[in-house]
Amino acid sequence: MIKLSGIFPPVPTAFDPDENLAVDKMRDNLRRLSKFDLAGFLILGSNGEKVMLSEREQREVLDSARAAITQNKLMLAGTGEQSTRATIDLTKAAAASGADAALVLNPSYYRGQMTAQALIAHYSEVADASPIPVIVYNMPACSGLDLTADIVIQLSRHSNIVGIKDSGGNISKIAEIVRGAEPGFQVLAGSASFLLPALSVGAVGGVLALANIAPRQCIEVLSSYHRGDLEKAREVQFSLIPLNQAITATGGVPALKAAMDHLGLYGGPSRSPLLPPDEDRLQAITRLLESHEIRI
Amino acid sequence: MIKLSGIFPPVPTAFDPDENLAVDKMRDNLRRLSKFDLAGFLILGSNGEKVMLSEREQREVLDSARAAITQNKLMLAGTGEQSTRATIDLTKAAAASGADAALVLNPSYYRGQMTAQALIAHYSEVADASPIPVIVYNMPACSGLDLTADIVIQLSRHSNIVGIKDSGGNISKIAEIVRGAEPGFQVLAGSASFLLPALSVGAVGGVLALANIAPRQCIEVLSSYHRGDLEKAREVQFSLIPLNQAITATGGVPALKAAMDHLGLYGGPSRSPLLPPDEDRLQAITRLLESHEIRI
Amino acid sequence: MIKLSGIFPPVPTAFDPDENLAVDKMRDNLRRLSKFDLAGFLILGSNGEKVMLSEREQREVLDSARAAITQNKLMLAGTGEQSTRATIDLTKAAAASGADAALVLNPSYYRGQMTAQALIAHYSEVADASPIPVIVYNMPACSGLDLTADIVIQLSRHSNIVGIKDSGGNISKIAEIVRGAEPGFQVLAGSASFLLPALSVGAVGGVLALANIAPRQCIEVLSSYHRGDLEKAREVQFSLIPLNQAITATGGVPALKAAMDHLGLYGGPSRSPLLPPDEDRLQAITRLLESHEIRI
Amino acid sequence: MIKLSGIFPPVPTAFDPDENLAVDKMRDNLRRLSKFDLAGFLILGSNGEKVMLSEREQREVLDSARAAITQNKLMLAGTGEQSTRATIDLTKAAAASGADAALVLNPSYYRGQMTAQALIAHYSEVADASPIPVIVYNMPACSGLDLTADIVIQLSRHSNIVGIKDSGGNISKIAEIVRGAEPGFQVLAGSASFLLPALSVGAVGGVLALANIAPRQCIEVLSSYHRGDLEKAREVQFSLIPLNQAITATGGVPALKAAMDHLGLYGGPSRSPLLPPDEDRLQAITRLLESHEIRI
Repeated sequence: MIKLSGIFPPVPTAFDPDENLAVDKMRDNLRRLSKFDLAGFLILGSNGEKVMLSEREQREVLDSARAAITQNKLMLAGTGEQSTRATIDLTKAAAASGADAALVLNPSYYRGQMTAQALIAHYSEVADASPIPVIVYNMPACSGLDLTADIVIQLSRHSNIVGIKDSGGNISKIAEIVRGAEPGFQVLAGSASFLLPALSVGAVGGVLALANIAPRQCIEVLSSYHRGDLEKAREVQFSLIPLNQAITATGGVPALKAAMDHLGLYGGPSRSPLLPPDEDRLQAITRLLESHEIRI
Repeated sequence: MIKLSGIFPPVPTAFDPDENLAVDKMRDNLRRLSKFDLAGFLILGSNGEKVMLSEREQREVLDSARAAITQNKLMLAGTGEQSTRATIDLTKAAAASGADAALVLNPSYYRGQMTAQALIAHYSEVADASPIPVIVYNMPACSGLDLTADIVIQLSRHSNIVGIKDSGGNISKIAEIVRGAEPGFQVLAGSASFLLPALSVGAVGGVLALANIAPRQCIEVLSSYHRGDLEKAREVQFSLIPLNQAITATGGVPALKAAMDHLGLYGGPSRSPLLPPDEDRLQAITRLLESHEIRI
Repeated sequence: MIKLSGIFPPVPTAFDPDENLAVDKMRDNLRRLSKFDLAGFLILGSNGEKVMLSEREQREVLDSARAAITQNKLMLAGTGEQSTRATIDLTKAAAASGADAALVLNPSYYRGQMTAQALIAHYSEVADASPIPVIVYNMPACSGLDLTADIVIQLSRHSNIVGIKDSGGNISKIAEIVRGAEPGFQVLAGSASFLLPALSVGAVGGVLALANIAPRQCIEVLSSYHRGDLEKAREVQFSLIPLNQAITATGGVPALKAAMDHLGLYGGPSRSPLLPPDEDRLQAITRLLESHEIRI
Repeated sequence: MIKLSGIFPPVPTAFDPDENLAVDKMRDNLRRLSKFDLAGFLILGSNGEKVMLSEREQREVLDSARAAITQNKLMLAGTGEQSTRATIDLTKAAAASGADAALVLNPSYYRGQMTAQALIAHYSEVADASPIPVIVYNMPACSGLDLTADIVIQLSRHSNIVGIKDSGGNISKIAEIVRGAEPGFQVLAGSASFLLPALSVGAVGGVLALANIAPRQCIEVLSSYHRGDLEKAREVQFSLIPLNQAITATGGVPALKAAMDHLGLYGGPSRSPLLPPDEDRLQAITRLLESHEIRI
C-alpha cells in the first residue's frame, strides 16, 4: 500500500522567457528541494499549469521530472482530463513515466451533468484501468465543482483509490471523509492554510504550494503535531498564514514563481493569460519572505 | 473581562401546539441543562427562532430565560437587527434583562451596501452604546453574508467587542482571525461539526446546537483537547458528525426540537413556515440518538 | 380582479436627519408623483426600508401613505415577514390601512428549510387569511433565496394569489412563469433594467425604483411597446440603463434618495447601517440626472 | 464585415458506440440541416464536446465539418483553450480548415487570476493573431466565470472582435452590452430560452442547441419578431420552453443526442463521463418531441 503521509510540493512547470518549456530548470528545482524531508512531489498539478500544456508537453514534463526525483521520494502525477478515455490515457502515460500515483481532478466542464453517478463511474473506470494507485483531487476553486463527502466515501471503497487531496478546505467535510471512508484511505490537505486543523481530524499530510518555498515550516507543522507539541504546531501554522495569503491564495502561480525567483530557485514566467505580479505585489512578497526568514 | 471559554447551547424558544410562546417550557429545559458543566446559554439565536418572534416576545423570552439561568452561567443574547438603532434598542433591553453579553448578527438585507465601512460603523455604534460586551456573530448560511477576516480583526480593536461566534466554518479564516485579532479576542465555533479543528487553531469554545442534546459529548471534545488527549478528542468529535448532519445541518430547528422531545426535554413545534420533520427523518433521528446513547 | 398593468414606484420611506420617521415628507412625494400616469405605489418594499422599521412604524407608514394616494391609484403593501403568523398579521393591518394588495417577500432566514413544500404552505396560508389579493415577491439579491418557476406556477393556482414581482431578472424564468401560470396571473418586472425584455415575454408592467425619479421614461417603455414602436421602446430602455446602474444597482436606497433630493423631491437619509453616497458617487448621480434631463 | 444575423446550431460531434469519432455521421447531419434557412453552424462548441476531444481530433472535426458545410453558410469554430498560445494555435488551425470566425471561450481554470486586465490581454492577443474574426463566448454554466459587460464592451473596440455569444442569459447585461459596445458589434443569444427577449434588446440571432432539432421554430421566432408579429414570436418562443428545459437545460448533450436519434438524425453516445439519459428522461423527450410535432 502506498504511504502518502508527509508533505508534497505541487511543483510549478518551468518556462523560459518566451513561455517555452524549460524542463532543465524544473529539474534543478526538484534537485534542490530533494534535500528536505519531503514525502515526494506532485507534477502537473494546478500549480504545475497542467492545463496550459499540450498533450506532448505534459508527457515530456512527467518524463523529465521522474529523472530528477530520487526513488526514495514519491512522484504524484496530475492526470485528470474532461473525458474518461483521455484521463485513462494520461494516467497510463504517467505510470509509464514512473509516477507512483495519479492525482485525478474530476471533470467539471459539464457540471450540470456531473451527478454522483457520473463521477463515481468515471473514477471507477479510471481506477480500474490505472496501473498505479489513484488519488481523488477535489479543487473547487479551479474546477467549480465540489465533490461531496458521500461521493468520496463511496470512492474510498475501490481498492485502487487510495486517498484524496482536498483543496476545498471545508474542514467539516474533511472530518466526515476521514470518519466515513474505508480504513487506510488517506486524506491530504490541499493548502497550507488549513494544514493543522486537517491533521486534527485525521489528515496524513498535505500537497501544499507553500512547500515549494517554505518546506521546512510545512514539515514542522506536521512533526510538531505528531510529537504532541500543539503550541509549536499552531505557532508555525500561524506563521504560514500571511505567506499563504499573499502568495498562494491571492497571487496564484505567478506569485509563487516570483517567490521562487527571489529565493534562488527558478520561477520564471507563467503562461498567458496568467500575468506576472505587479510591482506592489512583488515587493509585498519580497518583504514577507524576508520578514519570515524564508530560505531554501 | 468576560470569559467565553466553554460550551454554550443556543437554546430553542418553546412554543405550544398553537405556536404561542411557552416560556415555562423553555425555563424547564434551561434548568435541566444547568446541571452540565456548560459555560452558559445563548438566548434568541438562530436556533431560538429570534426572527420568528415579535418585538414584545423577544423581550419576554430574555426576561424569562434569565430567571431560569443561574448566576454562575453566562446568558448571551442575540440582538442583531437590520437597523443600527433597533440593534441598540434590543441590546439595551437584553442588558436590562440581565444578559452578560450581546451576540450581534450583522445586518444583511441590503447586502450590496454592506461594505466593510458600513459594517464596521454599525458594530462600532452598537458596541459604543451597549452596556454589555458585544460578540460578533457570523452566520452566512442564514444571513447570506460572510464577514471577512479583515473586518473581524478590525472590530477586535474595539474595547467592547470581545469575540466572535463563527458559524461559517471556514477554518482558514478562523485561524486568520485568531492570529490577527487583538490579544484576548475570543473565538467560538458556531457548530459542533468543526469544534475540534477550531480548537486546534485557538478557538476557546463553541455555541453548538448539539449542546442542547449532547452537552456531555461537546464538553468532552473540549476537555480531551485541553488535557492533550487528541485521540479521545477526535473520537468524540467523530461521534458528533452523524448527529450534527441529521439534526442540525439538514433538519434545522424542527429536527433539534424533535430530538429534544425524544430525550424528555420540551421541543414542541417550530413556527411556520418551518415544517416538522417528516416520519422518515423523525425515525432517523430517533435511531441516531439511541445508537449514540444520547441521554440528558 | 385587480389589474396590475402599469408602472409602480416602490416608494422610499422618509426619515428626518435624526433618522426618525418623516411621514409628511413621504406624503409630499406621493402627491407630486401622483400627477404621472402611474398604476399605483408600493409602500414598504425594499426601497421603502421596511426591514429598518419597527412594527409600529410599519403600520404608521401604511396609514399615512394611503391618506396621500388617491383612490384611482393602487396601493401595494410589502408585508412579508419571517413567520407565517407575523406575515398574516401585517397583511391584515395593511388591508385595514386600505392597501389594495399585499406584496409578500418569501421568508428566507432558514433558507435550508425553505423547501417548495414549506414555501407553498406559507403562501397558501397567507393568501387564505388575507382580505386582499396577494402578490408573490421574489428578490434574491436581498433574500438570498430565488423562488423557482415551479413554485410560482403552483402558487398561481391559488385564487387569492394574483401575480409576482420578480426582481431576480432571470428572463428565461420569467417566460416560464408567464407560460406556465394560471391565465390572468400577472408578472411585474422588479427592475427597470429588464423592463422591455420582460414585456416581450408577457409581463404586464413593473415595480421599478427608477419610477421614483424617471416615471415618464418608465411609462414610455411600456406605452411604446404596446403601440408596437419597438425602436422607441428600446431607445428609452437603453437610456434607463446607466441611471439604473448608478442609482439602483450600485448605490442602493441611499443613492435613490440622493437623486430624489437633487430633483426636488424629499430623499433624506437612509437608516444606518446604510451609508449616504460618497462625494464621487453623488456627483456621478447628479451628472447622470442632468445629462439625461431627468425632471419631476 | 462578417454578418452573424440568424440562427446557428452548435453541432454535436458524433461518436460511434465505442466513443470513437464518427465524422461521417456528423457530416450527414450537417447536410440534412443545411436545407433550413440557418445562418451557419458552430463546430466544437460545448454541445460539440470540444473538451472531450484530443488535439488531433479537434482538427479532424473542423476539416470534416467544412467539407459538409456549403459556402453559403458560415462555419464558426470553438477555439478557446486555457492558454493564450494554444488558443492562437487552434484558431489558426480553424482558419486553415476554412472556418469563417472563431468563437473563443474565455480561460477560467485559474479564475482567481482572470482579472479584466488578464482577460482583455488574452482576447486582444488572440484577435491580433487570428486570421479570422473573433467572437467572444461567455458560458458561465461551463466555465464558472461570467464576463462582465465592461470587459465585453472594451473588447468590442478591437477591430477583429466582432461579437459575442452569451449563454449566461443575464438579459440586463445583454442590453448593457448592446447599448455600450461599438456600433456593429453583434450579440448572439446562447440559448433558445431567452431568444425573444434578447432580440428585444438588440441581439441579432442565436447559437441555439435547439436549432439542431427544431430549426424551423428557432428561425420563426426571429422572423416573426422582425416582421413585428410579437404575438406569434412569443407563441413560438413559449413552445420552445419545455423542449429547452427537458433537452438542453436539464439533459445536456446526451439528451440532445437522444432527441436527434429520435428524429432520424444521428445522435449516438456522448463520451464518458457523460451518461446517456435514463429511461424516464428518454420517454419524456420522446413525448415532448411528438407533442410539439418536431420533425426534421
